[in-house]
Amino acid sequence: MLKVPAHQVAGHQASDGKLGPLVDDSGRFYKPLQSEERGANEVAFYTSFSSNKQIPDHIRRFFPVFYGTQLLKASDGSGMCPHLVLQDLVSSHINPSIMDIKIGSRTWPPQASEDYIAKCLKKDRGSTSTELGFRISGFQVYGSKESGYWKPDKRYFRSFTTEDVKLALRKFVSSNASADSDCNPDCAFASVIYGGSMGILAQLLELKAWFEDQTIFHFYSCSVLMMFEKELALKGRSSGAEVKLVDFAHVVEGRGVIDHNFLGGLCSLIKFTSEILTSPVESPPKAGLLDSERS
Amino acid sequence: MLKVPAHQVAGHQASDGKLGPLVDDSGRFYKPLQSEERGANEVAFYTSFSSNKQIPDHIRRFFPVFYGTQLLKASDGSGMCPHLVLQDLVSSHINPSIMDIKIGSRTWPPQASEDYIAKCLKKDRGSTSTELGFRISGFQVYGSKESGYWKPDKRYFRSFTTEDVKLALRKFVSSNASADSDCNPDCAFASVIYGGSMGILAQLLELKAWFEDQTIFHFYSCSVLMMFEKELALKGRSSGAEVKLVDFAHVVEGRGVIDHNFLGGLCSLIKFTSEILTSPVESPPKAGLLDSERS
Repeated sequence: MLKVPAHQVAGHQASDGKLGPLVDDSGRFYKPLQSEERGANEVAFYTSFSSNKQIPDHIRRFFPVFYGTQLLKASDGSGMCPHLVLQDLVSSHINPSIMDIKIGSRTWPPQASEDYIAKCLKKDRGSTSTELGFRISGFQVYGSKESGYWKPDKRYFRSFTTEDVKLALRKFVSSNASADSDCNPDCAFASVIYGGSMGILAQLLELKAWFEDQTIFHFYSCSVLMMFEKELALKGRSSGAEVKLVDFAHVVEGRGVIDHNFLGGLCSLIKFTSEILTSPVESPPKAGLLDSERS
Repeated sequence: MLKVPAHQVAGHQASDGKLGPLVDDSGRFYKPLQSEERGANEVAFYTSFSSNKQIPDHIRRFFPVFYGTQLLKASDGSGMCPHLVLQDLVSSHINPSIMDIKIGSRTWPPQASEDYIAKCLKKDRGSTSTELGFRISGFQVYGSKESGYWKPDKRYFRSFTTEDVKLALRKFVSSNASADSDCNPDCAFASVIYGGSMGILAQLLELKAWFEDQTIFHFYSCSVLMMFEKELALKGRSSGAEVKLVDFAHVVEGRGVIDHNFLGGLCSLIKFTSEILTSPVESPPKAGLLDSERS
């Protein structure tokens, strides 16, 4: 029995009879191949990645397991359509809090078409991507049995500024997370979610070390998922914190060059995350250092 | 007595009666303020940087010492013109080999004008900047008393590909460096120039650690200079290898965000440099990993 995923926070969604991914009860995630070359490119990536002997196991665990492709009835009723069969990353979770962060100040590969570059450049400059090296595409934060999830609409994230991103990264690990912009997030779970040897920051640093060295793939427009279980975090020990990489429709070959675009954005995210650990209470930004600042 | 610098490898040059920097015998470098806001912005940067207590001494040494500004007769005879008074970075060298590398896949700050962005984007995409995160702007390599310097014209670098950059970084530390594309560079001096605790790589790694953390400045369109003395390298010990940062007309405030654009490019350069140390003999690039690679 295929159904619409309960915990998808960004990307195309199968609800309302549209084309989107499906999941089953055995922990598999079925993602319809995207249009034009994107679908074929994502299959090519998973195929190449799965069989590549140069990927160390501690890095492979950041990626969904790939089970091949399968023809399935599309969620929009348009008939049979090829799907990627992947590991359902949240199937082992009960009430996951999830954040989807698109990494890279640039979401277009150098060899893309002029139209595609213009489209991406507009989105990158219109979001925090250019400035921060990443943008938040979506999240859900679990509150309690009573309050359920706080899961803002896509449009909530579109106008995000640097300060909004900083605030969201703090709200994500707070016991008092809410849309209310006046509420000062307490970062109560920061040390068990972002911190510790099994925490998000440790995992991001492991990824960073790989990206400083690997020249196999360049991950354009790919997302980091950060996940945890609030119920575990409340107990104050392990929080089930996990980092995963998803969305590989725009991966290209590295050809001997590191993915400096992904690496730069990842380092920026790491800096923000580690700042929350060192100073859970936000201090106001400093006033101008340079008198003349134009270009 | 002011004169035209003997060892400038990129940027505006005062030779042929044009406007450009001058040097004196006491080790000072006089750089005319650039037009529009660029000159004022560079003065603002040096002023702010010089007095900033957060810059550690081991980082400060990568920057030219700033002595203020001074009105001087311009090198193009156009009359008195304000100049930055800086440390002449090569005054302590005898026969310096120098490479000027503009760092960053993007040379424009997000807040720049549309015209400026379009101009930079074209140059970044037309050079290796977008692909590699940096581009070589110029170099000179000292050969011997007889052969003097190999110093290609600006235009030589404009059509540089990734492979040209890799080759240039190897020729730079070779005893048989020449324009001849058939000559296989021997990388004879790689271990004393790039390697070692005082070498270029160690210095780049020190800079990298600072860029992972500092959120004070963003260095757009700034260059790393790599310098050494071949005569010293021939003796096989210290090579006078030095890394310096120059050209701050497009520095903007970091406002709490790391300079992921500079950092990414720096990591890319570090990877190339360290590869030369581990495999001084170049191996041919691998064939395609992804079957479908378009966007």
